Amino acid sequence: MNTVTETSSLKAALSALTARVEAAMNAELENHLAASDPLLRDVVRYALFSGGKRIRPFLAITCANVCDRDDEGLSLLAAALEYLHTATLMHDDVIDHAPLRRGRETAVQRYSLADAILAGDWLHARSLYLVGKFTGEVGLDVFCRATEGMVNGEFVQKRLAGDPQAGEADYFAVIRQKTGNLIASSCALGALYAGTSPEAVEALQRYGECVGLAFQIVDDILDYTGKETEMGKAEGNDFREGKLTLPLLRALAVAGSEDRAAMLALIAGDREAPETTAQMKEYIEALGGFQSAAETAKSCVADAIAALQPFLARPESAPHAALLQDLAEYILVRKK
Amino acid sequence: MNTVTETSSLKAALSALTARVEAAMNAELENHLAASDPLLRDVVRYALFSGGKRIRPFLAITCANVCDRDDEGLSLLAAALEYLHTATLMHDDVIDHAPLRRGRETAVQRYSLADAILAGDWLHARSLYLVGKFTGEVGLDVFCRATEGMVNGEFVQKRLAGDPQAGEADYFAVIRQKTGNLIASSCALGALYAGTSPEAVEALQRYGECVGLAFQIVDDILDYTGKETEMGKAEGNDFREGKLTLPLLRALAVAGSEDRAAMLALIAGDREAPETTAQMKEYIEALGGFQSAAETAKSCVADAIAALQPFLARPESAPHAALLQDLAEYILVRKK
Repeated sequence: MNTVTETSSLKAALSALTARVEAAMNAELENHLAASDPLLRDVVRYALFSGGKRIRPFLAITCANVCDRDDEGLSLLAAALEYLHTATLMHDDVIDHAPLRRGRETAVQRYSLADAILAGDWLHARSLYLVGKFTGEVGLDVFCRATEGMVNGEFVQKRLAGDPQAGEADYFAVIRQKTGNLIASSCALGALYAGTSPEAVEALQRYGECVGLAFQIVDDILDYTGKETEMGKAEGNDFREGKLTLPLLRALAVAGSEDRAAMLALIAGDREAPETTAQMKEYIEALGGFQSAAETAKSCVADAIAALQPFLARPESAPHAALLQDLAEYILVRKK
Repeated sequence: MNTVTETSSLKAALSALTARVEAAMNAELENHLAASDPLLRDVVRYALFSGGKRIRPFLAITCANVCDRDDEGLSLLAAALEYLHTATLMHDDVIDHAPLRRGRETAVQRYSLADAILAGDWLHARSLYLVGKFTGEVGLDVFCRATEGMVNGEFVQKRLAGDPQAGEADYFAVIRQKTGNLIASSCALGALYAGTSPEAVEALQRYGECVGLAFQIVDDILDYTGKETEMGKAEGNDFREGKLTLPLLRALAVAGSEDRAAMLALIAGDREAPETTAQMKEYIEALGGFQSAAETAKSCVADAIAALQPFLARPESAPHAALLQDLAEYILVRKK
């Protein structure tokens, strides 16, 4: 169990690593964007420095630390993960015509469609160069598969939108690709950078996969139950878009024929109407869907921590592995 | 000078290499997209197999051949260049809301904005992986700088749109980045793949830069003078978008004060009106702008061929270098 002290050491570590990665990004961009068009510099910096939590850089650095390596190259590898993540968000916001992210204007809203697409491409290219430089062909393979998986996950999700035939296997396939991939890759790349054993890379990648799943499941619960101000968006967004997430799938699985028919009618009906989301939320609550999804998230976190055991047991790596454990546990209590 | 025989050997080589690269792309995609969403497969294949001339793959393979190397890996490296080129075109068409390219629907028109952005990202990631695999960190650096340069070129071009203060230096900076970069990189990557000397890489890269400039200058002339059916788009597109290309800049440079004032008024006026483009074309013609730009394209081709001299002089590389020479000379006579 987390104690108050452990939680504050996670906060301190996150804050220190955020400062470190932001300094590395600043120096890297200063150098690399020096001769570029001023507007390109602005768009890239606006998108990158927007209050992100730098979770992927934190994972890459801490996983390398767990494997006994730390140096300045690691900061740049960590920056590359944030570059790709940001590029993805920029393109997502273009696709979704999203006006806001993290409480402020998206890049596409503030600048233009062209600026957001092109600056995203710039960050994508730069991230791949840095990953290739610091982790070679093996790392590049891991990283490119993450991007390709994210793209494929979007296509699968769109294909399944609003389709109640899509079950848990589809749900997990989508979140594994859309969220789990890059988080697991961040862990694997940190370990690869440290030049550790294939077993250690695999264990940390597994930790990342489980953390990614838990994170997304909690996100999908909070999409219904979180307060709008805490999540930065209206509740029930996923349902309106036809994304049938785990809480709904679990409720549907245990619903009697009458409830089931009513829920299917809500899915097939006017999902934009606010009362539709409210009614669906009530069904999910009454049928234990949130509870059941939360249990699964908890079990993913337990799996993540199990993967850390070899590192927790070794004195040199234990303090770093403890941070990874704290992060995994924090997922279950976060409110936004 | 080209003889009829030389020209048909260029055509035969282009056609053979196109078939080879398309077979490599088919096999690579078959393998790599096998587990992907069917729509993603469709969008990627639709965009890739759309009658492109495969000039970048041709350059990569022929430059490697000039440096005495050829094998199956080279086909995949060449495919990667077409992947990136296609990804760029897909995103450009999204930005320009372009309904048609090469006489058929663009991917964004046929599928959707989301599909075109995401499939472009997929191709971008895949291209970088293949380049990293086959040419290592040095090749990745060349390739990523090409993408970053293309993005920067778009930003610079947009900033300068309709600005008659922008002169030849700006024009060349833009076309070097937007077109020259990837063509020069294709040559450099072929040479790097062959593991040749830095001097040979540099010479072939220089060939590519000059060919890229010549190609774009001719394109900019044809934008005014080409027939719509041959170019696949209306004439004067560039001028309407405020792109002040070399023919116009050359005409402006020699115009007397009266003509100059009239031309500046056309630039600042309603560029969408068809008679505006027709009038500008007349000024450029009368002031020798097309002639002057064509002379520069010719001189770029001469520079390109000069860079080939060491390879033309060496019996083993001469037949391959002769194809590169033919391609450079062909640029000056193409009508579309």
